[in-house]
Amino acid sequence: MMTLADIGEDALIARLVALIPTGFDGEGPGDDCAVVDEGGEMLRLLKTDALVEGVHFLRDADPKAVGWKAVARVISDFAAMGGMGDRFLVTLALPGTMEVEWIEDFYRGMGKCLTQYGAKLAGGETSRVPEGSAAVISVAATGSVARGKVVMRSGGKSGDGIWVTGRLGGSLSGKHLTFSPRVVEGCWIASNLRPTAMMDLSDGLAKDLPRLARSSGCGFRFNRPAIPCSDGCDVLQALSDGEDYELLFTASAEIDTDGWKQMFPRLELTRIGELVPEAEGASLVGGWDHFG
Amino acid sequence: MMTLADIGEDALIARLVALIPTGFDGEGPGDDCAVVDEGGEMLRLLKTDALVEGVHFLRDADPKAVGWKAVARVISDFAAMGGMGDRFLVTLALPGTMEVEWIEDFYRGMGKCLTQYGAKLAGGETSRVPEGSAAVISVAATGSVARGKVVMRSGGKSGDGIWVTGRLGGSLSGKHLTFSPRVVEGCWIASNLRPTAMMDLSDGLAKDLPRLARSSGCGFRFNRPAIPCSDGCDVLQALSDGEDYELLFTASAEIDTDGWKQMFPRLELTRIGELVPEAEGASLVGGWDHFG
Repeated sequence: MMTLADIGEDALIARLVALIPTGFDGEGPGDDCAVVDEGGEMLRLLKTDALVEGVHFLRDADPKAVGWKAVARVISDFAAMGGMGDRFLVTLALPGTMEVEWIEDFYRGMGKCLTQYGAKLAGGETSRVPEGSAAVISVAATGSVARGKVVMRSGGKSGDGIWVTGRLGGSLSGKHLTFSPRVVEGCWIASNLRPTAMMDLSDGLAKDLPRLARSSGCGFRFNRPAIPCSDGCDVLQALSDGEDYELLFTASAEIDTDGWKQMFPRLELTRIGELVPEAEGASLVGGWDHFG
Repeated sequence: MMTLADIGEDALIARLVALIPTGFDGEGPGDDCAVVDEGGEMLRLLKTDALVEGVHFLRDADPKAVGWKAVARVISDFAAMGGMGDRFLVTLALPGTMEVEWIEDFYRGMGKCLTQYGAKLAGGETSRVPEGSAAVISVAATGSVARGKVVMRSGGKSGDGIWVTGRLGGSLSGKHLTFSPRVVEGCWIASNLRPTAMMDLSDGLAKDLPRLARSSGCGFRFNRPAIPCSDGCDVLQALSDGEDYELLFTASAEIDTDGWKQMFPRLELTRIGELVPEAEGASLVGGWDHFG
């Protein structure tokens, strides 16, 4: 009998997507968010996500920070489409022994992140898990992006430059609980740099860059020494730690680096490689597989 | 230290709702769905829900039936507002030992229910839970209801009759995995019977009737022998088994029972009591508390 650990996350998703009548409206699964076209000027974005005790956070982590992370991860996915979140739902599946104070502080952390990014909690659900089971927190949300500004993973073309925001690696030293999703950066990139494809880096560049290239029907080459590393991290960590929540995007046009530095001084952008024809690319191993 | 098991589900929700800036737009938390008014003729409905292994289903249950249930529970919540679901998101938090075939059959079951009720899967997320932890499946969805037809829990008035659809009790003998959410019934009731409050019965009449009455600022009296019981069930089971997924509603007007039987012959409706002033009501104990 084949298990999830045998086939890994990406193969699982490919099998599941083939099984069911989907509603992706031609935009295709496997992107940071689902895109729903209701005919107006704004496209609707939908996203669901999960935080699991022992995988994404430990019980002794600051619950306010875990709450922040639960919301910020989803906001990061909206940012990766060039959009913003608006209304959030939270599902708590918790052991009966969970302390009420922990949950209240978790909510305070969610509230802080929602307020900071102009979003609201619209509802929730609670359920018990059996004693000894990990707590599971799922956050789902609606968001929106202007029709002309939406950026999918699938639009990259051979020859496009590959860029990342910020610095990568070292998430486990704390950044994975305290990061700021790149909402302003995502909107600004979508509006000013004509990106052809974009995603957020949640499972590590080694996992996510091949995903973006594959979605775009391309291969990739990357300039290993160019990868911007967080302080105290080496390139291996920058490739594999995961949970950077920086943006990875491609652009066909030359980017006027002097120009964007004047317009958006605190935006850190690094060109790390380029898309190539599918057969010619490099390969990367590492990064985070949930069932690996 | 106070735990969830100490205070129970309703008290937990009341504490959490007080903590966070919500987006209920005046409709208030604690209803079957969140209601979002975007200014158009249709109101948007949002809902999230969870199925936990060992609580809502057992690992040896038919995965197709579990998938059906995961979607049908959410559709039932939309029906309880007089509305319908449209786009669904699924979050799977699973142990690595989970069989791929199980998940594929779960998806087939979801797909069958989505297709039957005219909804679509828009996206999903997968994550690992630690070995030995229960699988947790969360389903979130968007739906809609016509502005003039939405039915909240909070609109009941003293003197209103209390009604239920169908028959109650006996969910564990299999109905909890195979039920049909009362979508047509909910729309029909909202359009024809001028209900003042409505909800679906997920935790048992003994738990849910006091919730509806409390949301409406009322007490209740109920006619115990009138409660419609499933074949082979007694009133105690009808009150306490939970997972009936029938509709509970109140109506101020006299309901012309001959009239609705002609219009909707297969609709089974029973008047089981009436709302009274808050201080005068009966009390009920029993039903399902997730942390009790």
